[in-house]
Amino acid sequence: MPPSRLFSPVPLVLRHGRPASRRAPLYGAASFRGCSCSAPQRQQETVNTAQATNPNPRLNPTTSNPPTPPTDHRALAQKHELFITSPYSPGSPLLLPNGAYIFQKLQAFLRAQYPQFGFQEVITPTIYKKSLWEASGHWENYAEDMFSVQGRGATGTTENAQVGQDEEFGLKPMNCPGHCLLFRDEIKSYRDLPIRYADFSALHRNEVSGSLTGLTRVRRFHQDDAHIFCRPDQIQEEIDQTLKFVGMVYDNFGLGPYKLLLSTRPKDHFIGTVEEWDRAETQLKTVLDKSGRHWDLNEGDGAFYGPKIDIILKDSNGKEHQTATIQLDFQLPQRFDLQYQASPLELETGPAPQAAGSLDAANRRPVMIHRAIYGSLERFMALLIEHYAGKYPFWLSPRPAIILSLNQDEKVLEHVSHIKSVLSGLKAKRNPDKAGPLPLSATHLPIDTDTTARSLAAKIKHARAKKYNHIIVVGPKEVETEKMQLRLASQPNPEQAVHKLKQILPWQVNESDTTSGKNVELSIREARRYFEFLVDSYL
Amino acid sequence: MPPSRLFSPVPLVLRHGRPASRRAPLYGAASFRGCSCSAPQRQQETVNTAQATNPNPRLNPTTSNPPTPPTDHRALAQKHELFITSPYSPGSPLLLPNGAYIFQKLQAFLRAQYPQFGFQEVITPTIYKKSLWEASGHWENYAEDMFSVQGRGATGTTENAQVGQDEEFGLKPMNCPGHCLLFRDEIKSYRDLPIRYADFSALHRNEVSGSLTGLTRVRRFHQDDAHIFCRPDQIQEEIDQTLKFVGMVYDNFGLGPYKLLLSTRPKDHFIGTVEEWDRAETQLKTVLDKSGRHWDLNEGDGAFYGPKIDIILKDSNGKEHQTATIQLDFQLPQRFDLQYQASPLELETGPAPQAAGSLDAANRRPVMIHRAIYGSLERFMALLIEHYAGKYPFWLSPRPAIILSLNQDEKVLEHVSHIKSVLSGLKAKRNPDKAGPLPLSATHLPIDTDTTARSLAAKIKHARAKKYNHIIVVGPKEVETEKMQLRLASQPNPEQAVHKLKQILPWQVNESDTTSGKNVELSIREARRYFEFLVDSYL
Repeated sequence: MPPSRLFSPVPLVLRHGRPASRRAPLYGAASFRGCSCSAPQRQQETVNTAQATNPNPRLNPTTSNPPTPPTDHRALAQKHELFITSPYSPGSPLLLPNGAYIFQKLQAFLRAQYPQFGFQEVITPTIYKKSLWEASGHWENYAEDMFSVQGRGATGTTENAQVGQDEEFGLKPMNCPGHCLLFRDEIKSYRDLPIRYADFSALHRNEVSGSLTGLTRVRRFHQDDAHIFCRPDQIQEEIDQTLKFVGMVYDNFGLGPYKLLLSTRPKDHFIGTVEEWDRAETQLKTVLDKSGRHWDLNEGDGAFYGPKIDIILKDSNGKEHQTATIQLDFQLPQRFDLQYQASPLELETGPAPQAAGSLDAANRRPVMIHRAIYGSLERFMALLIEHYAGKYPFWLSPRPAIILSLNQDEKVLEHVSHIKSVLSGLKAKRNPDKAGPLPLSATHLPIDTDTTARSLAAKIKHARAKKYNHIIVVGPKEVETEKMQLRLASQPNPEQAVHKLKQILPWQVNESDTTSGKNVELSIREARRYFEFLVDSYL
Repeated sequence: MPPSRLFSPVPLVLRHGRPASRRAPLYGAASFRGCSCSAPQRQQETVNTAQATNPNPRLNPTTSNPPTPPTDHRALAQKHELFITSPYSPGSPLLLPNGAYIFQKLQAFLRAQYPQFGFQEVITPTIYKKSLWEASGHWENYAEDMFSVQGRGATGTTENAQVGQDEEFGLKPMNCPGHCLLFRDEIKSYRDLPIRYADFSALHRNEVSGSLTGLTRVRRFHQDDAHIFCRPDQIQEEIDQTLKFVGMVYDNFGLGPYKLLLSTRPKDHFIGTVEEWDRAETQLKTVLDKSGRHWDLNEGDGAFYGPKIDIILKDSNGKEHQTATIQLDFQLPQRFDLQYQASPLELETGPAPQAAGSLDAANRRPVMIHRAIYGSLERFMALLIEHYAGKYPFWLSPRPAIILSLNQDEKVLEHVSHIKSVLSGLKAKRNPDKAGPLPLSATHLPIDTDTTARSLAAKIKHARAKKYNHIIVVGPKEVETEKMQLRLASQPNPEQAVHKLKQILPWQVNESDTTSGKNVELSIREARRYFEFLVDSYL
């Protein structure tokens, strides 16, 4: 085999617009999309030469000149210390503690729902040898968007090398081939299906450097990616459940309304039989009708390997974003020779369809469903940053509360420190060595304190500017009563938070008062319970 | 600039032993270790040519010929469906749902402790341009162990290219340079320190393919990596806290005894002043004495950039493993020009030491502490797999319980399904659409069921072979009483689990009875409470 190289060395040319070959990479004669991992949206591209020519690169080239409108996620991210970018890794944002906090809450939220919807997480490699990407079709059709990985023993330059020997690697842009490897590790029975693998792996796509922006157009991102392997007769139920999952998630964030778009069999280039497509499309239409949501038909615009449903979200400015996607795939199961032992009913209804290829007579091919609910976590986070405009709900907020001391009296400072431990969910400082580890179920909250010598008014002003959800004031009186003064300062739906507080202090809370920023006096235990209430209700 | 390439194309040669240049890569004249990210242990190497020559690669080349001793983690992993390996990505294990479950519990355990010890997680890129690795020294000294990443616009072949233009990338083997970028994003004050960044990123090191084995010698792994940036006067407290953290974690897993090893200033090649080293070493010795644990001196064996403490763990066979490590680093802060505004006290004690270079008079260099407690999560997991030999503690077990039906009566099956929902911590099947999302704090347990037509004896035999922690039996009698029969089947310390059960059912549980496998009758709510008890106590 002659030395092969994925990338011919091309000079770095930043172009306006996208070369035609990238808009619709060819796969045979049909457009190729290997996965639900939809690439960051193509919009008008801008040239950013600063990072390429800066001889002494420092951080934040994208935020040094914050653009309009004011709710741009990059400006807000700088204000709230969420992430930075670096010319050392353009398109790979570095998440600061506050940004990583939001990212992980988004991840944890989905993880908490996965068991209910039958998803199991797996952990899969970042690099795979060229031969895998050849098997999946990416090497032929997605090469321009992929990074190539080389090293000692993997240079791809040995002449007449056998398969697996001295092969270069590809940095994964999608998880699907890895999940196919996991699926085919053991023979599955019809009874084992559906199998639902979820994966939060980092993915890389080599976007043109001039188009990179904040969290929306990146080279490295994470998807809430999942692949469902199911029998053809399970498609309807799986799509139905996935649409319900999407609805629940978007409702939780107050996102929407969103549009459902069904793309069907292309006129000419498709795999599988017309009957298979018709059956699958009928199932999808039935589910869409049942969903009670408005949906549109995008006739003939499905991928050659299967029909799909895209979820189009309108943001507060009316701009449309494609976020979630659900794609049926008859192709990869064939390319990876995925099989399951057919059910008695399936065996009765005759032999496997012609597309089955090397399939054993007693086996069938599973259908693969690619699905993502957030889509790219980075892009979803950018959307939320703009959506909330800094007023994050308590459970997602990296600044849920700050405790301000009225003075610097020793007893006041001690009380502040004690309140901080309890509200954060940490062990008391008094004897931290003795106690064992904190339990997994403990809710930790990153409560801050401000015990500087500044005036209370100055401290409150600072806390408001930082968008802390709650401001807590502690002075000598609170030391005596073992209480605190709590004020709700920032919350997207303050009424709901106040309602929770009222459940704890019914005799004391007047909803309209608290919404307008009046202090409420409560004990440490009451405050912690209120905070736990908020977290458990995703408020 | 002439075209530069990290790797000269070398043919794939699998050798016995390690080339001399890899044993001690040179950094100036001193040995180079950029980070706490210690590479997998060097032991006798074996050649595995199967995966390189197999023309039709299938999975599990490493487990097809299970080695002795019987507690080899690869054999246990196959039995318990923890992970597979693939010739498509040698050295990057694919974690099946059960393996990913254990991996994530290990991660969640540390995450739950991080706030108590002041660590904040960050999320950093996977690839960085060559110029970053040049700044950190990796390009010069670690290249052989690194993978190079290339693509359109990053080929490294443009002649006379400026810095940042058309540079190839390196796939990160360590997190430290990324954390330095985060640290220096904003000017820090002495009051902001210590800053503690934690990062679970995937790391890649290009180990020789013949040496790759299971989870212990890999190319892709995750560390519980963290970097502490502190003032010189904070070193002692930070090391003290880190040793306490190590002790707590290892106690929790019943690992040990372990040995502490202090490596001090090399005779010739080191950076910084002798006084700085002496002061740092005195601080480390004070902490080690205070720890009450046995420690040994490894004189002159520190890295050129700072002294270090390694934790050497003895496994059940007496074999030694280096797991945790704590390394002081005076070097990277200098290479990345990290600074903080000095305290009044520091300004009083005179100008910054000579090693400071470009430092402003009012600023000082922080000290960087690289630390990992598990070390490589994959290797730690392998150790635990062998340590527990399949008998995982309940909280860590991917098979915490299985419910067996006594027959296939419809009411019995319904009761089984109901018990499964409640014990798993899921929403009841009855009306799943109406309810909102599950809260973040909910403890999910992957409870299985066996409702096949087999005999109860056969089901129990199967459940025991699979090492389920608990076996639950449900028949017509249990439907009537709304109860279940629960038996503790597998647990490393059954006495402690039974003790928890006794707290819930004091009148019913006889500790010796249950340890020997007798059934206990209890309600669904009692069983769930007992399970939550076990998880919260890390049993």
